[in-house]
Amino acid sequence: MSRRLTSPARVTVLGTGSWGTTFGKILADGGADVTMWARRPELAREIAKQHRNSDYLPGVQLPPNLTATSNLAEALRGAQQVFIAVPSQTLRDNLVAIRPFLEPETIVVSLMKGVEKRSGLRMSEVIRQGLEIDPTRIAVASGPNLALEIAREQPTAAVISSVSLETAQAVALLARNRYFRTFVNTDVIGTEFGGVLKNLIAVAIGIVDGVGYGENTKASIITRGLVEMTDFAVAQGAQAETLSGLAGLGDLIATCQSPLSRNNTAGRLLGQGYSFSAVVKQMQQTAEGLASVAPVLELARSIGVEMPIVEQVKQVLDGTLDPKDIAPHLTTDSDEPQGERINDDAEAPGGGVVWRSIKRAFDQLRDGGRSPRGD
Amino acid sequence: MSRRLTSPARVTVLGTGSWGTTFGKILADGGADVTMWARRPELAREIAKQHRNSDYLPGVQLPPNLTATSNLAEALRGAQQVFIAVPSQTLRDNLVAIRPFLEPETIVVSLMKGVEKRSGLRMSEVIRQGLEIDPTRIAVASGPNLALEIAREQPTAAVISSVSLETAQAVALLARNRYFRTFVNTDVIGTEFGGVLKNLIAVAIGIVDGVGYGENTKASIITRGLVEMTDFAVAQGAQAETLSGLAGLGDLIATCQSPLSRNNTAGRLLGQGYSFSAVVKQMQQTAEGLASVAPVLELARSIGVEMPIVEQVKQVLDGTLDPKDIAPHLTTDSDEPQGERINDDAEAPGGGVVWRSIKRAFDQLRDGGRSPRGD
Repeated sequence: MSRRLTSPARVTVLGTGSWGTTFGKILADGGADVTMWARRPELAREIAKQHRNSDYLPGVQLPPNLTATSNLAEALRGAQQVFIAVPSQTLRDNLVAIRPFLEPETIVVSLMKGVEKRSGLRMSEVIRQGLEIDPTRIAVASGPNLALEIAREQPTAAVISSVSLETAQAVALLARNRYFRTFVNTDVIGTEFGGVLKNLIAVAIGIVDGVGYGENTKASIITRGLVEMTDFAVAQGAQAETLSGLAGLGDLIATCQSPLSRNNTAGRLLGQGYSFSAVVKQMQQTAEGLASVAPVLELARSIGVEMPIVEQVKQVLDGTLDPKDIAPHLTTDSDEPQGERINDDAEAPGGGVVWRSIKRAFDQLRDGGRSPRGD
Repeated sequence: MSRRLTSPARVTVLGTGSWGTTFGKILADGGADVTMWARRPELAREIAKQHRNSDYLPGVQLPPNLTATSNLAEALRGAQQVFIAVPSQTLRDNLVAIRPFLEPETIVVSLMKGVEKRSGLRMSEVIRQGLEIDPTRIAVASGPNLALEIAREQPTAAVISSVSLETAQAVALLARNRYFRTFVNTDVIGTEFGGVLKNLIAVAIGIVDGVGYGENTKASIITRGLVEMTDFAVAQGAQAETLSGLAGLGDLIATCQSPLSRNNTAGRLLGQGYSFSAVVKQMQQTAEGLASVAPVLELARSIGVEMPIVEQVKQVLDGTLDPKDIAPHLTTDSDEPQGERINDDAEAPGGGVVWRSIKRAFDQLRDGGRSPRGD
């Protein structure tokens, strides 16, 4: 009851792509007064005057309590929370512009999924460096969140994560409404890596989609892909549980299954035989998954985590692996997995055996390995 | 090398639906001599003479080393391994007919996914009771295995499970070929329950599909559904790892995403407003998920496992819940999940919090619960 007597929260969203604009709508529909910052004055005017973003959310009516400006200082003034949704590789430069106008108590929330290519840092880490603020003032949002479905007000759940539970709660309270439900955790590493890594698996799914394989093959890649994602994130300090939740598996499935996903689309074009540069040219918006492949693999190698699916995606991007050859690898094992199993895993006869066996098979394939049976 | 010098293995598949016939093709393409048993003599003749099963696998050419008979004694004579793919609710009666002709060393493999409605037993348990053979002679096959995709020779992986590793290996060695790869484990409980429980979640996915929701909602249900599946199976003695592998998550995703899935189709019809009896009439083949709902829930209740998604599927089947009301529930939580989180889970701030919160919300919804905020 008390909330109704106070004035609405004042929040800002930086970036007016499909996700930034959709998140602005989420916040406004949750009751906050929202200011969007658009780089282009004409887009800011369209959002402010006509409550539309015809470039990125055609056909969607934006709420009256959502406005926009192309003046960054104006956008940031008095904001309790600032949500950033700019292309991940431009974040650092944007932070330079943001920093002078950021007020001392403002919470900064990353809506981005990716790692910075030159540093390998997660978005919240780049924010921490670029703004020099305490991590307790930083949060991230993630989950199975396809922008267009949410803009159409389909029921959706998401995770807000911060090392400060209080901060996560404060953000979750504003970023929720009748069609968008937020939950909180304090595993920022797991939450953020879930959103990064799923893009890479979605590219792989797109590739086999483009080649023409069906649901069995794709289900195997998603299942195996989640293991890669979890191994990687846990090695970085995440909790495995986070990767099994909305920010990991949930996001992975939504991204892999949606024809609306940019990463999936990019993969499909690759699978159909287009080159990396042709795909980049053909796509109107950035596919974060493509930009994240190299930095993620570099990180993985440095900490000794094997990511055979992501490695193969990189080979396709580099033009050293024919997309048509990626799918069979994903379900090909050595010829005697059961023999290997006895030697390596007599103590733990669960399903993990399957994946360790596949992992081993990938290694053999990469090393030009042969069937142990020799036939 | 040695295998080439021995004569081909002799195996039998009982049941000539789409999965039984596809598995016969898998075995034959792996080099075994396969005899299919069909109840109807004319179907046995079509398979044996024309190497086709136009009812269940139209357009698929069956291999020359696959034959068929409607004589059960003939089908079972000299079989090293017998694969059973009859409707789950007819298994016990079929076993009565099989038992007199089963040779003492034959391995019996269940290709079925379901539980016996009247007893709540898994298929391998029914086989054990019905044939009175040692569990070391019984195996089960599971995984992301959509029959029509495999019949079209798309790359696919599967799990063969037996309490006897030796038995699992013997089966896996025959049930593999260039497009079908098998892995082994000894967690029969987890492997079998994965294949049972995913059907129930697939019905739920079909329902929200039929109502018209998109990938965000479905990804949330799959993620949450896997938690329900794992909780249930682990309470029955399974290893959580198995549910995260091919026989759990892999099968769940393939089933949920395929328009070819009978359970998905059944759910979609329910979601579109057809009654349970109308759906049963409309579908040519049995949707195991529909038959499993009641026995699984009974088991779950008896061991204290909560399965809110499956409970709601049952309510839709019973006609006590409008399908249109199922989807919002799946992403609706109480109004203050973050407050609850502090009280209940201060020690484990991972992604599991999200699901515990959703679970709690379901309970409240089922109990007619209100928002704690009171607005």
